[in-house]
Amino acid sequence: MPIVASDADSYIEASRSSRSEWRLSSKDQLYVKKIRNGTVIDHIEPGHALDVLHILDINGKRGEVVSAVMNVESKRYVRKDIVKIDDRELNPQEVDKIALIAPKATINIVREYEVTSKKRVQLPQTIKGIIRCNNPSCVVNACEPVTSEFKVEVLEPLRIRCHYCGRIMGKDDVLKQF
Amino acid sequence: MPIVASDADSYIEASRSSRSEWRLSSKDQLYVKKIRNGTVIDHIEPGHALDVLHILDINGKRGEVVSAVMNVESKRYVRKDIVKIDDRELNPQEVDKIALIAPKATINIVREYEVTSKKRVQLPQTIKGIIRCNNPSCVVNACEPVTSEFKVEVLEPLRIRCHYCGRIMGKDDVLKQF
Repeated sequence: MPIVASDADSYIEASRSSRSEWRLSSKDQLYVKKIRNGTVIDHIEPGHALDVLHILDINGKRGEVVSAVMNVESKRYVRKDIVKIDDRELNPQEVDKIALIAPKATINIVREYEVTSKKRVQLPQTIKGIIRCNNPSCVVNACEPVTSEFKVEVLEPLRIRCHYCGRIMGKDDVLKQF
Repeated sequence: MPIVASDADSYIEASRSSRSEWRLSSKDQLYVKKIRNGTVIDHIEPGHALDVLHILDINGKRGEVVSAVMNVESKRYVRKDIVKIDDRELNPQEVDKIALIAPKATINIVREYEVTSKKRVQLPQTIKGIIRCNNPSCVVNACEPVTSEFKVEVLEPLRIRCHYCGRIMGKDDVLKQF
């Protein structure tokens, strides 16, 4: 399939020309997409766009204006997914969750058709409170008020170690919790 | 949000201009999307794009090139979702399943940048073998080889009646099975 994906800049550029979100350019007969305010998550690992939506608790049922593309070609990474969310900016915990499954993702914030921030996600060396240890005997799974804590040993493929019991977890284990 | 969604024709027109799937139009700085071969499912009830992907067993993990937009404005129905799938055409059973949750959807088949077929889904009066009766005592849930069968009593909101036990089911009951 002759598919050529734009890079993040191209995607964002879409926000700069007019106020129409979806329209037909009569001259070129093209389908055009823009964003006024919101977030574009680019360079998501191919096949993980729906996981990102799940992390952000987006299912479309609350009227969220969202688009997702999967497995389009990428100049930088061969293939990628992109998620665009209107009228929403992400909090640090949401960004950390995305970093766990898509460590190369970039978060672009658009306000009034301008990109006001563009950052690659960055997983902290220690992850606290976001995911549970999957060892049922681990102290964080007892009734005690202990906050989960993992050390990131390897980013890709993800390998994190529970601070309390030493259990090693990977991306599949993390995805099961989202 | 000033979002204007194209209608089905506009979406399809995108397929007619060039071979690039995602590209930047330098003059207008627009993000452009096209399809060479595949299916565009338009006029999906708003908020049901992910259900359609689920029905079609699409999660992006097998490299499927797919896009989904949710809750964009529609000239015809105020809001709608759209799903575009490259290199895939749907079978009749898949179309019937989509009709159950999105009775106004239109299925557009694109081949070599041309729309070769454009049809509104149409739920048959009798639905056989697609969904199970949710009455645990119904004969179709016993071990006997009985094919489930429902009569469609109302399309919107969906109301179907089991041929065997008379159990009434609605869209939420159906969605739980997909």
